[in-house]
Amino acid sequence: MNSNEAFDAEPFDAVQIITIKRDKGTLTPEQIDWTIDAYTRGVIADEQMSALNMAILLNGMNREEISRWTAAMIASGERMDFSGLRRPDGGVKATVDKHSTGGVGDKITLPLAPLVAVFGVAVPQLSGRGLGHTGGTLDKLEAIPGWRAALSNEEILAQLQDTGAVICAAGSGLAPADKKLYALRDVTGTVEAIPLIASSIMSKKIAEGTGSLVLDVKVGSGAFMKDEARARELAETMVALGKDAGVNTVALLTNMDTPLGLTAGNAIEVAESVEVLAGGGPEDVVELTVRLAEEMLACAGIHDADPAAALNDGRAMDAWNRMIEAQGGDPKAALPVAKESEVVYAPADGVLLELDALSVGVAAWRLGAGRARKEDVVQAGAGVRMHAKPGAYVRAGEPLMTLLTDTPEKFERAKEALQDAVVIGPEGSRPAQQLIIDRIA
Amino acid sequence: MNSNEAFDAEPFDAVQIITIKRDKGTLTPEQIDWTIDAYTRGVIADEQMSALNMAILLNGMNREEISRWTAAMIASGERMDFSGLRRPDGGVKATVDKHSTGGVGDKITLPLAPLVAVFGVAVPQLSGRGLGHTGGTLDKLEAIPGWRAALSNEEILAQLQDTGAVICAAGSGLAPADKKLYALRDVTGTVEAIPLIASSIMSKKIAEGTGSLVLDVKVGSGAFMKDEARARELAETMVALGKDAGVNTVALLTNMDTPLGLTAGNAIEVAESVEVLAGGGPEDVVELTVRLAEEMLACAGIHDADPAAALNDGRAMDAWNRMIEAQGGDPKAALPVAKESEVVYAPADGVLLELDALSVGVAAWRLGAGRARKEDVVQAGAGVRMHAKPGAYVRAGEPLMTLLTDTPEKFERAKEALQDAVVIGPEGSRPAQQLIIDRIA
Repeated sequence: MNSNEAFDAEPFDAVQIITIKRDKGTLTPEQIDWTIDAYTRGVIADEQMSALNMAILLNGMNREEISRWTAAMIASGERMDFSGLRRPDGGVKATVDKHSTGGVGDKITLPLAPLVAVFGVAVPQLSGRGLGHTGGTLDKLEAIPGWRAALSNEEILAQLQDTGAVICAAGSGLAPADKKLYALRDVTGTVEAIPLIASSIMSKKIAEGTGSLVLDVKVGSGAFMKDEARARELAETMVALGKDAGVNTVALLTNMDTPLGLTAGNAIEVAESVEVLAGGGPEDVVELTVRLAEEMLACAGIHDADPAAALNDGRAMDAWNRMIEAQGGDPKAALPVAKESEVVYAPADGVLLELDALSVGVAAWRLGAGRARKEDVVQAGAGVRMHAKPGAYVRAGEPLMTLLTDTPEKFERAKEALQDAVVIGPEGSRPAQQLIIDRIA
Repeated sequence: MNSNEAFDAEPFDAVQIITIKRDKGTLTPEQIDWTIDAYTRGVIADEQMSALNMAILLNGMNREEISRWTAAMIASGERMDFSGLRRPDGGVKATVDKHSTGGVGDKITLPLAPLVAVFGVAVPQLSGRGLGHTGGTLDKLEAIPGWRAALSNEEILAQLQDTGAVICAAGSGLAPADKKLYALRDVTGTVEAIPLIASSIMSKKIAEGTGSLVLDVKVGSGAFMKDEARARELAETMVALGKDAGVNTVALLTNMDTPLGLTAGNAIEVAESVEVLAGGGPEDVVELTVRLAEEMLACAGIHDADPAAALNDGRAMDAWNRMIEAQGGDPKAALPVAKESEVVYAPADGVLLELDALSVGVAAWRLGAGRARKEDVVQAGAGVRMHAKPGAYVRAGEPLMTLLTDTPEKFERAKEALQDAVVIGPEGSRPAQQLIIDRIA
């Protein structure tokens, strides 16, 4: 009906697409393909996409729509292909990836990738940097002298072939539509839409070309998803998306009301990961690492492996050393140490019932371990070292946490974040937490 | 929490505001004032405002929020003040405005403004141009040779003082936030939000400074609101907004399933209005004009006037002539006539049950009476002249409509629009339409 009709090669228009979702309708596959493509080309403007995102957040998308949306985002960029991988040691030919939705003290990727590689499985872990209170895997590894995050696709393939495990930065060519969309969602209050979260994560993971995928969906105060019902919905949506794309996908729902392990930061999390690879480390980190390894190995068709043994007998540590060295890192080098520290003491005698993940995450972030803006630089040594986990008996005046930073003026605001982080109960009480809540396949 | 915190003078941020409405919360008066002001200043970006608009469309706003939103839009620009007006003939000192939500063949403002002025009431009608299938009052009046729409505020006041009635273009200084917001809603599928429609209309009407306001809220195929429940909600919302702003506001819900009168266009609607002012004209146009005049006069405290008599005895026509002449128009000049015409015939014998307003509106628009884009020029003579109203008995082959245009290549698409416009029933059947559906005060 408009005067440019004859010159207009676009099959749909943005208002039409927005109106369908606004009125609780269903988009056709062609409409979804056009939407992602037109947004990537700039034919759909940011203000139109943000209105559509809000309509999707409030009115939802069905499984077919989310699946097509994900496929369209994958089609917006390049794909990686690991199908030709053959390990020289004659191991299995499977690639298995793991993704965590992010939590405080979540260093699991570090011991997990080399541990799984021990059993002949190729583990490509294309990771990101942290923003806000959850740390980034690359930020942690960059605490290791010499280690570099940026690899070419050829280097990734070669390292996977040689060592079985690689943790590196995701290339900018994967799902560029997702990158543009995520930046928009971040400033328009539409990050929290489950269809958009699920398709954002899965588009990158599917484009990476993995054969199987194990998801660690966090739920709790320190997680993106605060309540279990929404975390479960997100996990189910992602498992369905994986299935639709031919990627064997399993999800664990795991607790993030308290930090994982006893460290939240960068260098201190690397050190804790190395303890786990040496057969030690905090119980919860070991439990989750072994459980995720079992899930990943099962995806690869390996049901008789004993990952716990590989942590105890040095095989996982060997794989770690090879992985770090392949990226220029020196696994024996001393890790950076924060210049200043300040101790937080237990306020009373009793059982530590809560040590709030979000509070610890924000404190570590404010100490310099994380960044508020993309361009900020993180401090390798900064963070929070905890001296007790929920369930432990503590005495008033005993050290509960050590705050670490190079910039002591940051202690004040870090301590503010920790104000209500600790709950101590009478002797005999027990924290309610259970690490692994459920498995969704 | 961000590093610019200390330099950041804004009391809120856009994501916070969006998140509140997204999660079905209520915005405080301060948050609403900031939102409109920050959007006008460009601190809230278009993509943020469109996400907020979609959240408002889907989750609504309560009466206090809509009222504050309207007040904030008024505060974004200048206000007019008619409180000092005194008619030289010693008439009443009230100003009463009327607003129609727009329909096909809706020329009521033309006879209504001078008719009400006859009784000593000042009638400022700041109007717009048409976009899409509903015509604009200014487009119609511009068919009169010499008539000009643009008046300064001083000219408006002087003309109101002298003649009692003015129909002219709204100045750009009134509610500039509404102007920016409307343009955004238009391209982001958020026009249909009742709180946003109501505040858009009422912010301009309140800023105009009228003492009372009579609303004609159209419902039916040719109206913006297709169903009665939503039209009623819009009317109730606007009446409440008027009350909150101290403007005495009454709304009529009126039918727009079929065009008003027997003409849809520009010059042909002026001619039909002049017939009404001469005591003739189609029954429905006379009925609605008299009813709205009674409502406007009652708002001004005049309950004993007889507007129907003023149409029959020439007083209304005298007021019309003065009003047109005051704006440079020649009320006696011949009106433009379309160069080409084509007749549409009745397809069967029987009672005309439906003559669809939207179809006739689209046909008139395609013939050149309306515009698809703001910059388009309308044809003064183009439009659709109807020869029968629903309820009339018609015979097969009898002329039902005459299509008028200067550009005969447009007949084809106009006839396409009219394909399903006509429903003819057996003798004795009756159309269901009732012109005035309800009154909301």
